[in-house]
Amino acid sequence: MGWVHRRRDLGGLIFIDLRDRYGKTQLVVHPERRPDLAAQAHDLHAEWVIEADGVVQARPEGMVKRDLSSGEIEVELTSFSVLNRCLPLPFQLDDAAKASEELRLKYRYLDLRRPEMQETLVLRHRMANVVREHFTAEGFLEIETPFLVKSTPEGARDYLVPSRIFAGQFYALPQSPQIYKQLLMIAGMDRYFQIVRCFRDEDLRSDRQPEFTQVDVEIAFADCDTVFATAERLFEKILRAAWGIEIALPFPRYSYQHVMETYGSDKPDLRFGLPLHNVTEHLRETEFRIISSALEAGGVVIGLCFSGKASLSRKEVSELEDLAKTCDLAGILPLKLTAEGFAGSLVGKVSEDHLRAAAAQLEAQPGDLILLAIGKKSSVLKGMGAFRRKLAEKFQLFRPDLHQNPSLFWVVDFPLFERDEETREIAPSHHPFTGWLREDDHLLAGEPWKVRSTAYDLVMNGSELLSGSIRIHDPQQQAEIFRLLKIPDEEVELRFGFLLEALRYGAPPMGGMAIGFDRTIMALTGGSIRDVIAFPKTNLAQSLMDGCPSTVDPQLLKDLHIAVVPPKV
Amino acid sequence: MGWVHRRRDLGGLIFIDLRDRYGKTQLVVHPERRPDLAAQAHDLHAEWVIEADGVVQARPEGMVKRDLSSGEIEVELTSFSVLNRCLPLPFQLDDAAKASEELRLKYRYLDLRRPEMQETLVLRHRMANVVREHFTAEGFLEIETPFLVKSTPEGARDYLVPSRIFAGQFYALPQSPQIYKQLLMIAGMDRYFQIVRCFRDEDLRSDRQPEFTQVDVEIAFADCDTVFATAERLFEKILRAAWGIEIALPFPRYSYQHVMETYGSDKPDLRFGLPLHNVTEHLRETEFRIISSALEAGGVVIGLCFSGKASLSRKEVSELEDLAKTCDLAGILPLKLTAEGFAGSLVGKVSEDHLRAAAAQLEAQPGDLILLAIGKKSSVLKGMGAFRRKLAEKFQLFRPDLHQNPSLFWVVDFPLFERDEETREIAPSHHPFTGWLREDDHLLAGEPWKVRSTAYDLVMNGSELLSGSIRIHDPQQQAEIFRLLKIPDEEVELRFGFLLEALRYGAPPMGGMAIGFDRTIMALTGGSIRDVIAFPKTNLAQSLMDGCPSTVDPQLLKDLHIAVVPPKV
Repeated sequence: MGWVHRRRDLGGLIFIDLRDRYGKTQLVVHPERRPDLAAQAHDLHAEWVIEADGVVQARPEGMVKRDLSSGEIEVELTSFSVLNRCLPLPFQLDDAAKASEELRLKYRYLDLRRPEMQETLVLRHRMANVVREHFTAEGFLEIETPFLVKSTPEGARDYLVPSRIFAGQFYALPQSPQIYKQLLMIAGMDRYFQIVRCFRDEDLRSDRQPEFTQVDVEIAFADCDTVFATAERLFEKILRAAWGIEIALPFPRYSYQHVMETYGSDKPDLRFGLPLHNVTEHLRETEFRIISSALEAGGVVIGLCFSGKASLSRKEVSELEDLAKTCDLAGILPLKLTAEGFAGSLVGKVSEDHLRAAAAQLEAQPGDLILLAIGKKSSVLKGMGAFRRKLAEKFQLFRPDLHQNPSLFWVVDFPLFERDEETREIAPSHHPFTGWLREDDHLLAGEPWKVRSTAYDLVMNGSELLSGSIRIHDPQQQAEIFRLLKIPDEEVELRFGFLLEALRYGAPPMGGMAIGFDRTIMALTGGSIRDVIAFPKTNLAQSLMDGCPSTVDPQLLKDLHIAVVPPKV
Repeated sequence: MGWVHRRRDLGGLIFIDLRDRYGKTQLVVHPERRPDLAAQAHDLHAEWVIEADGVVQARPEGMVKRDLSSGEIEVELTSFSVLNRCLPLPFQLDDAAKASEELRLKYRYLDLRRPEMQETLVLRHRMANVVREHFTAEGFLEIETPFLVKSTPEGARDYLVPSRIFAGQFYALPQSPQIYKQLLMIAGMDRYFQIVRCFRDEDLRSDRQPEFTQVDVEIAFADCDTVFATAERLFEKILRAAWGIEIALPFPRYSYQHVMETYGSDKPDLRFGLPLHNVTEHLRETEFRIISSALEAGGVVIGLCFSGKASLSRKEVSELEDLAKTCDLAGILPLKLTAEGFAGSLVGKVSEDHLRAAAAQLEAQPGDLILLAIGKKSSVLKGMGAFRRKLAEKFQLFRPDLHQNPSLFWVVDFPLFERDEETREIAPSHHPFTGWLREDDHLLAGEPWKVRSTAYDLVMNGSELLSGSIRIHDPQQQAEIFRLLKIPDEEVELRFGFLLEALRYGAPPMGGMAIGFDRTIMALTGGSIRDVIAFPKTNLAQSLMDGCPSTVDPQLLKDLHIAVVPPKV
C-alpha cells in the first residue's frame, strides 16, 4: 500500500512508482496480459493511495537501477484497488522549492511527504533517542514538569491561560521548567532531564518559534566540570550518530571577554580565522581626523587581517566597505601590505613604524589586506564580529561541507548582569537564579556589572546550542540578587516566594543546562527552524494549516470570565 | 554529599545517616578521636545538606545490617561541611501519612524526598523508556505535535490561550493530538507515536488531572489486528519490566454488548467471577408485585451467584442490601440455595421450578447466595456492575497482590454514537473521526445508534488503559458523520475544514490509540493519580506549591486584548 508517485504509460507497458516512507517500488502492468488492470491503471493519478498485489520479480537487464535500493526488482500486478483519491496538488512535490512558503505551510501534510522533510523528522527522532539513552545511561531520570504553571516572567513574555474555576486568575505556559527542575533537586531527584516544550510570546525573528523544544537538564551537587563533561559526552554521541564523526573531548573553554575581544561575538564561528585585534595604541599618533577624534572620545581601532587579499581590486575593496555598513559599522579603513610596503589612505597619516607595529600585531604578511574599524569599543567589536562572519560567507572561508570538523567550545565567565546603557539599571544576563564566582563577591555591592557569573554557553559553528549555569542554592544569596535587581519585596514574595521558601528546606548545590533541541537539529541538517519542526508557525505565530489562532465560541470566554477588548484604532 | 536523615548521639559515638536517591550511608564520628568534628556534628539537624569526607570501613560485627545495601560499611568522618540548612519540617518525612494531603502538596519538594515517591518516578521513567524502545524497535517515529492549536472542542472543554498579535483570537491547548496525528498519516509518516501532555478543562473527579500524559499512537494502512498486536507486545514488555511477569498474548476480545450484559461495565475487572445473568424469563410468573410491575414496565431481573455465601447471617445480608443502594440500585433480593432448598422472600411467590431454572442459569450450587436486582435494563446492569465490584472489594475476592495474574482484555464493537435519553440526539461515543463496521452501513441513515464503531479499549484490572479506533479516511464518510451529528456546514468548515480538505489529498486508511500513561503507572503501583505525577494539581486544578493559577500584571492582559469580567454575585 502507498502513494502513486508517478504513472508512466510506455505504449506496451504501464509503470507505477508506488511511494511510502521507505522508498519507491516499481509496479508494472502488461496490457496484453491484463487488459482489465491496464484500463483500471489509466485512471490513476499522482498521490492517489492504492493497495496492490503482485509478484516481485527481477527487472529486465536493461532496466535495473543500481542507485535505487529497490532498483533491481519490480512488482508485476495481479490486482490493485484505490484506497483514496487526491485532488489536483496545490504544488508539485518534486518541485516544492518553486512554491511559496505560505502555500507549503498551508498544505504542510503534502510538504511533509517529500523525502527531505521526512528524513529530517527521522533524524530528529533518532537524536531524541540518543539524548534519552545518554542521560538514562548516566543515571538521569526524565521527569515531566507541569505546563500550567505560575506566571513568573523571566524576561520574555508569558503565554497566559485563563482559569475557569478562579475568575480573574491565570496560568502561564512555561518559558522553561527552570524553577521546577530546581525544586526537583531540592526534592532529592539528583539528576533530572526532560525533552520538553517551552513557550515565549515574543515578536518572532526568523529563527524563533513561539513553542520550541529544549533538552532540560539539572544535576545536584554539581560544579561546571560535571555539567560540561555530561554535555560533551552527549554531543560526542550526537555527532557520531548523525554524521559518523569523532570529535575531540574536552571542548576548549573561552571566557566571554576573550571571545568578545577576539571575535566580536559571544557565539563566534571558529571554523575560520580572521581574529580581531585592538590596534588602538599603534594608531594614536595620527593626523587622520576620523581616527584622532574617535580616540579622543574614548574610542578604539579594531582590525583584522585578511590573508592574501591585498590583490583585491579597488572595486572589490569598495564592496567590502559596503558590506561593513550592513554590520552597523560606520565604515572600514583598508590597508594593503604588499612587498613594496603599505598602501591605503593611512599611509602618510600614521608613521611607517606604527603601521608596522599594527601589522605585526595583526600577524600580517606581504600580500595581506588589513581592515580597520573605528568607534566605541562595544559597538565596533560587535560590528567587526558580524563583518568577520559575512566575510567568511562571501569568500567561503569555511568548507561548505558541514560534516567536517565542527567547531565546538564553551564560553564561560559571562557577566552576571547586563546594564542598560541609558538607565544604568541592571538586569540578569541569564536568569535571576544564576550563581557567580566566589572571587567576585567583593564586587557585588559596589560594581555588580563587573561580577562574573557561573553561566556558560556551548557554541557550535557559530550557533548557541546550549546555555546553563550553576545556580544559587543559598536563600540569602537569592534574596540578595532580587534586592540588587530592585524587585520590591512584595513582588518577590508574590512571584518567587515559594522558591525562596524551598531553598530554606535543605536545597543542595545544583547546576544544569538547557540544550536547544530545534537548534541542534538545525545545526545537524543546515535547515531552517521551520524545516525541523513537524507543524511550525509563521513569524506571526500563526499555523496556516489549521488556521490558529482563531475566534472561539463567546460562551467559552464567558465561562472563563474574560471579554475581548478590541484595540483602539 | 547528601541529606542528614538522622543524627544519633550514642554517648561515645555520633552516627549520621546520610541519605540521597540511592539510599542511606552511615557516617560515624568518634568524639575521643575527633572532638572538633563531634562538636560540629552536634549542630546537625534532619534534612540539612552536608558534604563529608571520610574512610569507608567495615562495620563492627554486631552492627552489620544485612537488609540494607550499605549495611556492611560505615564511613568514619575526617571532615565535613554544611552546604545548606533546613527549617523545621512542616511534616515528618518518615510519617508523611499523618500529614494532610494539602500540606504535602504545598511542600511537594519535601514529600518527593520520600523513597516511595522517588521509586514511583523512577518506575515512570523506566516505563517511558520501555514505551519508546518498543515503538522505535517497531519502526515508529516520535514526532512532536504543537501545543498551541486550533480550538476544535471534542466533548471536553478546551483550555484557551489568548493571542497577543491577533486581538480577539485564541489558541487552544490540545485535548489530544488526534487531528495532528491523522495529518501525519496523510503526510506519509506511516507509524507515529508520542508521549505527550494533553489538557482538558473539566470539573475534576478524583482520578483526573487538568493536564495528563498519554502515549499517542497512529498507524497508516492498519486494521485493528495491527494496532492490537502492537499494543499487546508493548504491555507484555511493560509488565515484564515492571513486575517481572510474563502475560499470555493475544489478549481476549469481548464485545461491548457482552461485557455490559455480563459484567455491567465497559471496563470490568475480571480478576474475580460474579458474572451477571439476565434471569427475567424465569421470574415472569410471580405474585411478587415488585417484580411483576417492573417487568410489565419492560424491566429485567439481573442476578449474580455469590458462591458459598448462603451461610451469611441476616445482618450480613442486610449489609449487602445497603451496599447495593450505594450502587444506584433500588434494592437487592437475596435468595439462598441450601441443601434443604431455597430460602428468601421469593420462595412461594415464584414456583420452585422457575427458581430452579433461574438458579441453574446462575450455576448456583447448594450453599450459594443468589442476589437479584430489578429495574430498567441499562441502569440495573450498571448498578449490578458497580455492586459486583464492591462485593469483590468487601470480600477480597481478588488477591491484594497486584503483581499476580492481571486481567487484560480488549473491548470492541462499541456503539458509534451515544444517544441522549431525553433529546434523542446522538453524539460520538469516542470522537467524530471514528470509523464503523462495514456490515452496519445499512443502519447509519435510519438507526445510527445501532451502528457499531471500529473503536476499542484495553482494560486491565478494571481500569481503561487505552482507547483507540480505526479512523474514517474517506472525506465523504467524514462529512456524513458531521451531517449526522447535525453540526452546521459553516461550523464544520470553521472547525474541521482543514481536516476534511486534507482527507481529499490522498489520505491512507489509518488507526491508532491513546494509552493513558498516568493510568498505566497507577495500575502498576496501585497509587493515586497524584502519586504518579511529580507536580500534580488539586481537584480545583490548583498547584498548592507555587500557588497557580494567580492574578497577573494588568498590563499583560491589556497586551492580550482581554479584560476580566468578574462573575455576577
